[in-house]
Amino acid sequence: MQFDTVIHGGTLVTSSDVARGDIGIRDGRIVAVAENLSGGDARIDAGGRLVMPGGIEAHAHIAQESSSGVMGADDYLSGSVAAAFGGNSSFIPFAAQHRGQSVDDVIATYDARAARSVIDYSYHLIITDPSEAVLQDQLPRAFARGITSFKVFMTYDMMNIGDGGMLDILSVARDHGAITMVHAENNDMVKWMNGRLARAGLVAPKYHAISRPELAEEEAINRAISLAKLVDAPLFIVHVSTAGGAAIVQREILAGTRLFAETCPQYLAFTRDDLDRPGMEGAKFVCSPPLRDAATQAALWQHVKSGTFTSVSSDHAPYRYDETGKFIKGRDIPYPQISNGMPGIAARLPYLFSEGVVKGRISLQQFVSLSSTNAARTFGMTDKGSLAPGMDADIAIWDPEATRVMSLQDQHDNMDYTPFEGLELTGLPETVMTRGALITHKGRLIAKEGQGKFVPRAPMRLLGDGYLAKERDPAQNFGAQI
Amino acid sequence: MQFDTVIHGGTLVTSSDVARGDIGIRDGRIVAVAENLSGGDARIDAGGRLVMPGGIEAHAHIAQESSSGVMGADDYLSGSVAAAFGGNSSFIPFAAQHRGQSVDDVIATYDARAARSVIDYSYHLIITDPSEAVLQDQLPRAFARGITSFKVFMTYDMMNIGDGGMLDILSVARDHGAITMVHAENNDMVKWMNGRLARAGLVAPKYHAISRPELAEEEAINRAISLAKLVDAPLFIVHVSTAGGAAIVQREILAGTRLFAETCPQYLAFTRDDLDRPGMEGAKFVCSPPLRDAATQAALWQHVKSGTFTSVSSDHAPYRYDETGKFIKGRDIPYPQISNGMPGIAARLPYLFSEGVVKGRISLQQFVSLSSTNAARTFGMTDKGSLAPGMDADIAIWDPEATRVMSLQDQHDNMDYTPFEGLELTGLPETVMTRGALITHKGRLIAKEGQGKFVPRAPMRLLGDGYLAKERDPAQNFGAQI
Amino acid sequence: MQFDTVIHGGTLVTSSDVARGDIGIRDGRIVAVAENLSGGDARIDAGGRLVMPGGIEAHAHIAQESSSGVMGADDYLSGSVAAAFGGNSSFIPFAAQHRGQSVDDVIATYDARAARSVIDYSYHLIITDPSEAVLQDQLPRAFARGITSFKVFMTYDMMNIGDGGMLDILSVARDHGAITMVHAENNDMVKWMNGRLARAGLVAPKYHAISRPELAEEEAINRAISLAKLVDAPLFIVHVSTAGGAAIVQREILAGTRLFAETCPQYLAFTRDDLDRPGMEGAKFVCSPPLRDAATQAALWQHVKSGTFTSVSSDHAPYRYDETGKFIKGRDIPYPQISNGMPGIAARLPYLFSEGVVKGRISLQQFVSLSSTNAARTFGMTDKGSLAPGMDADIAIWDPEATRVMSLQDQHDNMDYTPFEGLELTGLPETVMTRGALITHKGRLIAKEGQGKFVPRAPMRLLGDGYLAKERDPAQNFGAQI
Amino acid sequence: MQFDTVIHGGTLVTSSDVARGDIGIRDGRIVAVAENLSGGDARIDAGGRLVMPGGIEAHAHIAQESSSGVMGADDYLSGSVAAAFGGNSSFIPFAAQHRGQSVDDVIATYDARAARSVIDYSYHLIITDPSEAVLQDQLPRAFARGITSFKVFMTYDMMNIGDGGMLDILSVARDHGAITMVHAENNDMVKWMNGRLARAGLVAPKYHAISRPELAEEEAINRAISLAKLVDAPLFIVHVSTAGGAAIVQREILAGTRLFAETCPQYLAFTRDDLDRPGMEGAKFVCSPPLRDAATQAALWQHVKSGTFTSVSSDHAPYRYDETGKFIKGRDIPYPQISNGMPGIAARLPYLFSEGVVKGRISLQQFVSLSSTNAARTFGMTDKGSLAPGMDADIAIWDPEATRVMSLQDQHDNMDYTPFEGLELTGLPETVMTRGALITHKGRLIAKEGQGKFVPRAPMRLLGDGYLAKERDPAQNFGAQI
Repeated sequence: MQFDTVIHGGTLVTSSDVARGDIGIRDGRIVAVAENLSGGDARIDAGGRLVMPGGIEAHAHIAQESSSGVMGADDYLSGSVAAAFGGNSSFIPFAAQHRGQSVDDVIATYDARAARSVIDYSYHLIITDPSEAVLQDQLPRAFARGITSFKVFMTYDMMNIGDGGMLDILSVARDHGAITMVHAENNDMVKWMNGRLARAGLVAPKYHAISRPELAEEEAINRAISLAKLVDAPLFIVHVSTAGGAAIVQREILAGTRLFAETCPQYLAFTRDDLDRPGMEGAKFVCSPPLRDAATQAALWQHVKSGTFTSVSSDHAPYRYDETGKFIKGRDIPYPQISNGMPGIAARLPYLFSEGVVKGRISLQQFVSLSSTNAARTFGMTDKGSLAPGMDADIAIWDPEATRVMSLQDQHDNMDYTPFEGLELTGLPETVMTRGALITHKGRLIAKEGQGKFVPRAPMRLLGDGYLAKERDPAQNFGAQI
Repeated sequence: MQFDTVIHGGTLVTSSDVARGDIGIRDGRIVAVAENLSGGDARIDAGGRLVMPGGIEAHAHIAQESSSGVMGADDYLSGSVAAAFGGNSSFIPFAAQHRGQSVDDVIATYDARAARSVIDYSYHLIITDPSEAVLQDQLPRAFARGITSFKVFMTYDMMNIGDGGMLDILSVARDHGAITMVHAENNDMVKWMNGRLARAGLVAPKYHAISRPELAEEEAINRAISLAKLVDAPLFIVHVSTAGGAAIVQREILAGTRLFAETCPQYLAFTRDDLDRPGMEGAKFVCSPPLRDAATQAALWQHVKSGTFTSVSSDHAPYRYDETGKFIKGRDIPYPQISNGMPGIAARLPYLFSEGVVKGRISLQQFVSLSSTNAARTFGMTDKGSLAPGMDADIAIWDPEATRVMSLQDQHDNMDYTPFEGLELTGLPETVMTRGALITHKGRLIAKEGQGKFVPRAPMRLLGDGYLAKERDPAQNFGAQI
Repeated sequence: MQFDTVIHGGTLVTSSDVARGDIGIRDGRIVAVAENLSGGDARIDAGGRLVMPGGIEAHAHIAQESSSGVMGADDYLSGSVAAAFGGNSSFIPFAAQHRGQSVDDVIATYDARAARSVIDYSYHLIITDPSEAVLQDQLPRAFARGITSFKVFMTYDMMNIGDGGMLDILSVARDHGAITMVHAENNDMVKWMNGRLARAGLVAPKYHAISRPELAEEEAINRAISLAKLVDAPLFIVHVSTAGGAAIVQREILAGTRLFAETCPQYLAFTRDDLDRPGMEGAKFVCSPPLRDAATQAALWQHVKSGTFTSVSSDHAPYRYDETGKFIKGRDIPYPQISNGMPGIAARLPYLFSEGVVKGRISLQQFVSLSSTNAARTFGMTDKGSLAPGMDADIAIWDPEATRVMSLQDQHDNMDYTPFEGLELTGLPETVMTRGALITHKGRLIAKEGQGKFVPRAPMRLLGDGYLAKERDPAQNFGAQI
Repeated sequence: MQFDTVIHGGTLVTSSDVARGDIGIRDGRIVAVAENLSGGDARIDAGGRLVMPGGIEAHAHIAQESSSGVMGADDYLSGSVAAAFGGNSSFIPFAAQHRGQSVDDVIATYDARAARSVIDYSYHLIITDPSEAVLQDQLPRAFARGITSFKVFMTYDMMNIGDGGMLDILSVARDHGAITMVHAENNDMVKWMNGRLARAGLVAPKYHAISRPELAEEEAINRAISLAKLVDAPLFIVHVSTAGGAAIVQREILAGTRLFAETCPQYLAFTRDDLDRPGMEGAKFVCSPPLRDAATQAALWQHVKSGTFTSVSSDHAPYRYDETGKFIKGRDIPYPQISNGMPGIAARLPYLFSEGVVKGRISLQQFVSLSSTNAARTFGMTDKGSLAPGMDADIAIWDPEATRVMSLQDQHDNMDYTPFEGLELTGLPETVMTRGALITHKGRLIAKEGQGKFVPRAPMRLLGDGYLAKERDPAQNFGAQI
């Protein structure tokens, strides 16, 4: 057989198997998984290494303005480079609609921004204005172009589309085979807390966590699921940060609801105490939903382990610890004015490997599922996320015994801090390739700007749809039929 | 001892005891519970009868306009007479604020209307417009007058005050020791379903049930509880109609949440199939939340039996089956225009006794708890709801072996139908007295118009407040402290 | 009215009500509960006092040999005196069958022992040898005499009757309306742990708790309930010591199982750390099931509060801290040879009042339910447990503001230690009467030896039997029908 | 590359992936998974076919006497041939100890019997006599030979080893990395029911189901798990037949217990009504645990779908419907004398594919997990159960569109009936190979008697052992440390 590249002598890991073997690549695709492949224009020695599907980062804010208009520090070049150094061969950032803006405009805008990416990409489309034109014409058009996931917000006055708007989006998504993602926090609860805290003069960064209580997330998760069930639409809960929220998700999945969810490393690694670091250092840890406590960390790890979460994503939101980012409204500001979000696109997978696999919380196969395979399937990247013949040669090669202390410079993003500074890691990505081309290798960037391609995604084809449909109670799911 | 009245020879039932004995009454109060009391200016022979605390109807719409402006058929005279014939010695209808109206006006309006009542009364105050003046001044003034329960709506555009408004009301109520009641249905879900059904031309009465799905109630119950927990305020869920909703209530009560709830006979007796009766007959069964199914009935009975519900109330909403009531907007109308509600103030207790006690689902003591004692305590009628010395002589005497087929004429209200028509009853109230004065006796009305008095109610003094407070997590219940 | 005794001016508390009033007593029974009763050959001033149904101690080992043949320190005189000083007006110790002994012999033996009691009594009959003669003839005869509760053991080689024996007892009990009580710990688990610990030389008192793990109780509770459900018989789980066990009980009660349970003050007050006190002091805290931990205490209190437990009993097992009791097999012995049990018959109610009512965990009414009313009903003492006319005048008068530091001398039993030594109490019983006669009054013993009488008890008449029977699945409950 | 065999043009399915590709085989192992492999001494055209890991039958009784001494109809030749025609490339029947027999004898006996197998095999070792010699010497010796799973019984007087015996086996298994399997039914419950039914003369086959109630399985599953948790040992619950039992398993797995379970096609396909077929036909459906009802089927399918079950096994127990099998004790016999078990080794996978995959209840990947991969991993067949390079070439090729009506002759066993007679199937195995050699192909048997080999199995190396150990409470899991 003829190969462009052979990856030789590694331990191959998929979401199912751990095996010894080589990978043969031709025309950007995997064409052979075999013992002792000869040939290959290029040969990569993977002895002592793990050869895995490249990570797919499914939650990142790249070249995106926040709802209050602050542009994050990473564009598609820096963002994709950081992602690749962190073990990712593709990603799916957001393309965010401003109110009044057409979806076609949104996509055109992000197409222009994304052209710089070094890895493959798609977008989740954030909808903040579900007008009739959006629902009837623009979303179907976006869907036809292969953008098959829509995100909505239950919080932030500028983003929140209300329960009725969610029902509209969910039913359009269901009709086309798209999946709806949701940021679930009760907006009124948060605003009410903000008001009370402001009145009491409690505005230090640590009150950010107080202002967005666990109840706000748990309530909104329950409500989002109720809305999705009403119209029988699949749903994806992003960045679950509470034990209570994860328990609701678990219960519903087991009951057969078509539900997916993720958590993020920050909720496993930090607590609200980090918001109370000296001076304004707590601002580095301001994100929404906020950090919780140690008991929550343990509960979330148990859910990672037992399969509640589809994936562990970064929610990379790169606001620098300076006047362009966190402090765009000033240095000495009350917590609600601090820009909201934490970086982590390069830290996600090393964190998950070191704290998850190496510490025995999850298996290697689970690492692959959580970092790549499940995202590929849930979001319709049908040619990515595994090592089988015919798949894109999107591959990450890890040295499971390499160690490093995490620091800002390993992140390769445009940030001036990493919250994970000082964390001791075991296991690091050494090589990442996308469609057979090296992106990063042994610490060097190989890829050229713009080498990444837009990936049209497939609609969801859910297991058992036909079967389940027969068992549904029309009196309860009438919403799905009209 | 001197007595105005002695009730002699009956079986005395309280929420705790079943005993043989007499009741001695003086100056409107019970002064003795004893064997063989002699004397009494009047003596009532209760041989073979059950002597119980008079029923307290805690959920009735009397002399109240609906949110769309339709005045119900019963004023405080007909309503109180019907209540008394149904075994009630007092009731707590609603005093409803129109948007823009001051609470003082509301109370003055209802004081005038209630002056005709033959039994004692108070009001639950419906708040639809929680302005600062209402929150800061008017509610505390109402509270000082002994109106210690406020009701809010999560549904109906004209009533719904939003999650933020609920937090405001809940925290004011908590500060004063008042309890907040809530009609829990998700407004957006209902409106969305209405829109879809209208578009599809599905507007027969049976679609009323489809338009208000179980998910809408379950979601809203969960949300209301979340809001109450945020500010650590007690909450009362009215007219629970779903197994899922009751299960949430049960779970939270067991976890220590200060939560109360009721269901109503219509949810135990009927199903959504009754909405599909020939012609427009289904309109008689249009109420919100709507009727469900047989499995729900069984689940709700199990919750009645196991203590989930504080009380079983009627939700008496008297819209006649004519152009003044159900069809005020016309005869041949889509379901959303049918006036919403069912009568039942006189049927509640005979139904609960016959279907509950006689059929062995609940004990006599539970009947007293569910019909009277629990309502007295939850809503602060400290002198009513039991048969101990010092209590008001509010007493109902029942013949447990009397039988009757339920029919319109037994209801004594101003209605032209009863949904319970034809139900076979065993066990009927024979005599009702309020503060020692006969209201009804052996089928005759004894009381004079206006004999009932307004009952100032006490604040809630909840068990274990101090104890629990110590165990609360300030990070979670901060809302209660600011 | 004529009264032998009037209790004047107190606050009357039942499981339902708190009221001001007097109690009139004639011929040992309550004949009036009223305001300002005049007359009475004797008058007791209860101003500032709580007048409550006398406590019923439903779990005590009096004049009973342990399974290894050690006679406890208290006979029916000392035991009943201690009980009365602790607020109890009657009790139900055990009458225990030795293997091979006839039930008639057992009852005759205990009748002779119990003749010394100063308060009323019955027995729970412990069955260790369910032969055909016992099942067919002797138990029905005991039942006819008014002994309507049977206790069985799932642990201790000399007591354990196996699952088959339990099914036999449960079905005989069900047929007669008796209730079966069970000590639920898995015998094999305990023996296996004993073997392993002995082999490892781990025999200090603290290993007693290790040897009887929480799993052993939780497993056995689940098994006992399964057996009872198979034959559709009511069941009472004694001395629940684990959060897991209590959760199973709660779940089953809510599902409609005819299940009852108790916990004991020692499981609320102590932990396994007390077994590790210096020297052999830990022996004072050796009881089975063993003491657990602080998290368990909190969970058990929540179950006390929320109604999982029918009663809080003492499990008084009086083995002195000397060679007649704890150390009958020697001073320096491995834990399995330490006599098993803790005293507490006089401490139970002061503990429950002070830690429960005064600290706001339970209401006064719950105190009455847990200390008296529920035991009276569950075990068929139909004339005791409340303050209604016609009931036995079994009354305890408490001073809710009296304080004392608990010490051995307040216990009045034959013990040489109390585990509660040093506990600060608020609220103490001042007077106890049984059938109208003073037993203790203001610290003095008034009653004469032998003044107590045997109380024949009624069969269980469970709520809803008829109703539930219709809903049972014959394929699952066939065991109840053959 | 050189290949002995190439499987060309099929759709490759693993527990993770569905891909198009070829399989290259050399020396009995898979050496390449690739597109368009050339060469191969033999080439198998798999166009339009599914190429999957061969089934592993993990629960079958082959050449085994029942506890009452009846030898099943299938020896290792007929049993292995039937298995292969049913899509299996290896199996793990039982090697059963008689009381008093040494484990070495047991293994020698089964080695002789298994020498006829056409597919690879191992044994689960049934222990009925856990003497010290067995525990200390013989089990470690069996383990060293690669027999790493032990099975015990909680029912049948001749098999049941008691809770203490189970603790002994579990702790030995844990120490060596073996897994303990358990038949969980409460023996006393079953015996008690048998006694009652016999006394009532209820002995038709349908009473078999009544005699082994759901409670008996649910109780025993809970108990078995409790025992395993006490000593911190992994556990495998065989043939779960109840919704309640499956719910316990699910709950424990989610809580982190190292627990595995299976169900069988008979519990998905039949109900207790089948035991009531005319005449003695019900005898064909006598198995233990017994068949249940339609609601149970639905619940078990939901558990298959949601991952509660590790595998779906046949529990093949081949007793013919004649005097050598079902009726060895006579034709007209009470149900307890009917030989206990149903055949299904050839029906298992066609049933699971047709009812599971084709009807949309499970995915293709789940089919592979449930039929092969999970069994390989749980039971330590490290070279089987997937299609990766280096694995044994144990492969089944299925025609997903082939249809057939199930009948006795397709089973190829020695039976004279199949309970699945008449079931319409879609999807059938066409070719099975073990270690690269054809066993069956297009309806013909290719393999020679004795071609199968014994497979030494690896110890369990459970994910997260080290991690979890740190979090365990020594007071609760002390049993694991002594």
